[in-house]
Amino acid sequence: MNATVIDTAAIIAVGSELLTPYRADTNSVFLTARLNELAIEVRGKLIVGDDRKRLARGLERSLDDADLVVLTGGLGPTDDDVTRDVLAQVLGMPLVEQREIVEVIQKRFSARGLGMPRINRRQALVPRGAELIPNARGTAPGLWVEWRKQVVVALPGPPRELKPMVDGPVRERLAPLTSGSHLARRVVAVAGSTESHVEERVQPVYARWRQRAQVVKATILAGPGQVELHLSTRVSSMPEAEAALDLAVEELVAVLGCDVYTTVGLPLERVVGDRLRALSWRVALAESCTGGLVASRLTDIPGSSTYFDLGVVTYANAAKTDFLNVPTSLIEVHGAVSEPVALAMASGVAIRAAAEIGVGVTGTAGPTGGTDAKPVGTVCVAVTGAAGERVRTFTFSGDRDVVKRQASQAALDMLRRMLDAHG
Amino acid sequence: MNATVIDTAAIIAVGSELLTPYRADTNSVFLTARLNELAIEVRGKLIVGDDRKRLARGLERSLDDADLVVLTGGLGPTDDDVTRDVLAQVLGMPLVEQREIVEVIQKRFSARGLGMPRINRRQALVPRGAELIPNARGTAPGLWVEWRKQVVVALPGPPRELKPMVDGPVRERLAPLTSGSHLARRVVAVAGSTESHVEERVQPVYARWRQRAQVVKATILAGPGQVELHLSTRVSSMPEAEAALDLAVEELVAVLGCDVYTTVGLPLERVVGDRLRALSWRVALAESCTGGLVASRLTDIPGSSTYFDLGVVTYANAAKTDFLNVPTSLIEVHGAVSEPVALAMASGVAIRAAAEIGVGVTGTAGPTGGTDAKPVGTVCVAVTGAAGERVRTFTFSGDRDVVKRQASQAALDMLRRMLDAHG
Repeated sequence: MNATVIDTAAIIAVGSELLTPYRADTNSVFLTARLNELAIEVRGKLIVGDDRKRLARGLERSLDDADLVVLTGGLGPTDDDVTRDVLAQVLGMPLVEQREIVEVIQKRFSARGLGMPRINRRQALVPRGAELIPNARGTAPGLWVEWRKQVVVALPGPPRELKPMVDGPVRERLAPLTSGSHLARRVVAVAGSTESHVEERVQPVYARWRQRAQVVKATILAGPGQVELHLSTRVSSMPEAEAALDLAVEELVAVLGCDVYTTVGLPLERVVGDRLRALSWRVALAESCTGGLVASRLTDIPGSSTYFDLGVVTYANAAKTDFLNVPTSLIEVHGAVSEPVALAMASGVAIRAAAEIGVGVTGTAGPTGGTDAKPVGTVCVAVTGAAGERVRTFTFSGDRDVVKRQASQAALDMLRRMLDAHG
Repeated sequence: MNATVIDTAAIIAVGSELLTPYRADTNSVFLTARLNELAIEVRGKLIVGDDRKRLARGLERSLDDADLVVLTGGLGPTDDDVTRDVLAQVLGMPLVEQREIVEVIQKRFSARGLGMPRINRRQALVPRGAELIPNARGTAPGLWVEWRKQVVVALPGPPRELKPMVDGPVRERLAPLTSGSHLARRVVAVAGSTESHVEERVQPVYARWRQRAQVVKATILAGPGQVELHLSTRVSSMPEAEAALDLAVEELVAVLGCDVYTTVGLPLERVVGDRLRALSWRVALAESCTGGLVASRLTDIPGSSTYFDLGVVTYANAAKTDFLNVPTSLIEVHGAVSEPVALAMASGVAIRAAAEIGVGVTGTAGPTGGTDAKPVGTVCVAVTGAAGERVRTFTFSGDRDVVKRQASQAALDMLRRMLDAHG
């Protein structure tokens, strides 16, 4: 009988590139989502270079702290790739070459009409006793090791290889080893209020929660143009968890009102898309300072073609007048960054696209181009169409990318509020 | 005399939200860039929840491994914010309230016409002996602690607060404590080749490097649509480091040719922008499946308005015909995802914008919309204009966002190659 029960995990990302300014670990976010679905809580994340000693120490420490250790990266064919060696050393399992892996790798290369580079042979070395996790999209197989009452999983670093491995074979092996308790989460997100003021509004709600038997934990988080409340609760039955979280969310919405745009962690672009789809409306976008970011966010959502036909990025004034029929005189009198121009852009693009609703964004994202009256970060957003007309001027601070992000958030949020008011 | 010399750093990001699927630590990437500029190498990154015990253990371990420990997050006003407490405990410095901080926070709130929430008072607790690092953009000051021969710095989590603190007071305090040696880095990035084949081409170069006195370290990295080679070297003089890296880069370019798009780590959108500016050309974009991502990337670069006037996101076929004069018959005969349509989009938008060069992208980003002949991930990219005409069909794999990213990379790279061929 196997007494291994997995409630907690540690994630170790391996790769010197992750300790440079050019790369960040993103796999652990995906892994966390999948582990949480199995009620496995992530206790910590560690990022180490291609360094045998530090990786060995990190692995030992992670084994002290969690039932499951997931390593990502360091399984490639090059000298830098130390994960196999360190696993063998720390777990006391010598490396042996598996001929079948060599054959699989050779086939992958020959399918693309290429020969197998000799260095790929290293990828066939496997700690004795480890099981292989097939990798359909790359040359490095993953490794599954049951060790004492714990599990160590090693996966390749490239997200497109790792993801299907996690969703398939890793999940299948993990599911029977979990305790059967459930970790339920909810994310309530708010636009248009500061972190401190959201916190003040929700404090009395938290106080009530502390009196209850079913503990709901909450964490507050501020991002560009939004504040998130992350709720979680751990219970033995999923309906019980859901009921506790439903009540908690209801109490938060009661104090936060329509500043709340989602209670289930959806991105704002998805919320807006769902509203548009429900109304069978289409939106058209005219962007200046956001440079296509609003369109790109909206089209990150699968199926967005049902409510989005046309976006125009009019960086030059001439493009605003030629394409969107913004009167030249309006730009001369009020300036390109002004509420009248934002409104004219919004209605201009809506007419061009024959869309029910139009959004116009004009501003200065910086770092240059600001004036005393309209400093860098000044952004005018207009929403016009079947549901009426709204326009606002914002003053954002931060770098160019942060201003772009905040402006895109403001545009999507104004659109949401107008759709809500109408719907 | 102060004998503290800082060569190495560990970064600890604090916050339970960073252990959920909804957030990733991004501060450490910025911090790494700034520390590297001071020749401080990052040895590891750790991410822990709002958990006193684990943070204390992580801090102790990091102090064993690096000269400098930078903590981010956990300085807010709420109960979750444990960094101050843990610093006090691990370093043995009791917390004391500093009235001046209370006054600064009160002023920040009153400047916005608001009262100070009572909970913000916790932010005035400071470990005795710590110096304050002023925070111009938030209520939480940072902390600077010299401890034995090491330094611990605690900074607030929000990037817009942290960044100016690092670039100002933190940098000023760190600079005199570094050894005076230099860590120089170079990033050579390549488009249009696989990781293994780049590796094979560069292996003979690496072999030569191993014979040399001045050690150049290299790490290879594959991303969507690109492969990067990260080079670094540590020396006592900057000119010496630069010379060693210049030679190394030259040898890499000799084997990789025009697949190399940068030898100094610039993003592809910046490289393309520089080429356009040098030619005094303007580009116009017509995007379908990339949904504005190419425009958004191009406009992430300050000053992009000099070479970019107009981008159009034509998600619907009607928008392609109305706006870009793509003949309806072309779409009927070849399909919207086809080389002739990509070409017509590129030339259509270039004519509309009176730009020297036009780019057209059409494809299926998924998850639905694929056919047997044109599966999800099929993307046609065309570049047309003063320098000629090129069109290619790609088959990308991965999720919607990965396909979008790869397609935007392919479009920018085709544009780069055409500009290079011309320039």
